[in-house]
Amino acid sequence: MISKSQIKLITSLKQKKYRAIEGLFVAEGPKVIAELIASNMELHSHFSSEINAVENDKTHKITATELKKISFLTTANKSLALFEIPQISEVNKSGLTVVLDAIRDPGNLGTIIRLCDWFGVEQLVCSLDTVDCYNPKVIQATMGSIARVNVHYIDVSAFIKNTELPVYGGVMNGNSIYNEALPADAIVVLGNEANGISKVIMEQLTHRITIPQFGKSQETDSLNVATATAVLLSEFRRTTGM
Amino acid sequence: MISKSQIKLITSLKQKKYRAIEGLFVAEGPKVIAELIASNMELHSHFSSEINAVENDKTHKITATELKKISFLTTANKSLALFEIPQISEVNKSGLTVVLDAIRDPGNLGTIIRLCDWFGVEQLVCSLDTVDCYNPKVIQATMGSIARVNVHYIDVSAFIKNTELPVYGGVMNGNSIYNEALPADAIVVLGNEANGISKVIMEQLTHRITIPQFGKSQETDSLNVATATAVLLSEFRRTTGM
Repeated sequence: MISKSQIKLITSLKQKKYRAIEGLFVAEGPKVIAELIASNMELHSHFSSEINAVENDKTHKITATELKKISFLTTANKSLALFEIPQISEVNKSGLTVVLDAIRDPGNLGTIIRLCDWFGVEQLVCSLDTVDCYNPKVIQATMGSIARVNVHYIDVSAFIKNTELPVYGGVMNGNSIYNEALPADAIVVLGNEANGISKVIMEQLTHRITIPQFGKSQETDSLNVATATAVLLSEFRRTTGM
Repeated sequence: MISKSQIKLITSLKQKKYRAIEGLFVAEGPKVIAELIASNMELHSHFSSEINAVENDKTHKITATELKKISFLTTANKSLALFEIPQISEVNKSGLTVVLDAIRDPGNLGTIIRLCDWFGVEQLVCSLDTVDCYNPKVIQATMGSIARVNVHYIDVSAFIKNTELPVYGGVMNGNSIYNEALPADAIVVLGNEANGISKVIMEQLTHRITIPQFGKSQETDSLNVATATAVLLSEFRRTTGM
């Protein structure tokens, strides 16, 4: 059973504005919900149409029809939960930090958060025009990794200005990533899907790095930003072993 | 102006069955269409609602409303073209070949084709239950790379049985990819999004390789198959320089 006010609340959370007001975000499907609970994300409420899903005192049994009504997915997946948006921790000044400059695609951001989790990057700094990490599509793509990566939305240019770490940027005509002596403490900047790193940030880079292209044809215009992030983080971790 | 029979033909190409019968596939948007033409894909017909798009004797001017009717995209993008599905070349027995075992997500296959193009992998062998590479969603995700990678749909197990090359498979508990002496001529197998490499193929692998996990938590269950492909291909190319 689900009330009209609950439906209204859930529906409102599709919008960033209401996620900020309510301090809540939506996750769907037993697997993602279970991962978020296991990672100590604070569960607000849980709506499930199946008995064998995650169950606790915040679980409301609902029908498949009710679930379909509140789900943001094309095909509703057994359960939907609301979680509290965690308090933002302080920005950390050491270690490896990934900086995103205007990433717009929720799937790309979700994949990058998952990559940060895999490669032990605990901090992700996003420009204010990067897609919101509590966007439902991002949450579904992160597969629970959102709970283990601190995501900050700040003025990226000011953040870089205040760091003493080397600032690497993924660009089209930089030095080969394979030939760089990469440090364990660094900032790695990835840019917008269509336009790359913005002019202001480009001028703040201390190192311009590129993933060499091996294809015979030089027509492939660029790697997808998430796959480029995969290769860059792999190289940082491979060479520093951190 | 577009005829009823043209609309019927285009709509039918959403299905693999009719793509096989007609020998045609659909690409949308000026950028993807221009890339495919530049890569010598045979243009069958071209429907455009804008003057400044690619134009030739196969171009039919249509209205935005007509385009919306034939487009497979949520938001139609100025033009739609039909291309001939190219003749399948012979399977090549040397070089680096990527083998996909039951990849189901069109976005993943499209990203992997783009990665093959970037890293100069000219041959992609797909199991018969892998999503069709002429699926409209795959075509949109490849960004034209489909023209530069030979994609074969064959019995993967038989293909591996007949090769003399080492067969590497991306698995959860194999040897670190960073410690392997990787050859220039090899087969690299990636498995299904949910279940990984199937049992039959797993037994045919000569080398089980893994991308090391650096996160503190061991809860990330796996890398997305496309980002894993990015790291593996990068390592093969970095170490062999081919």
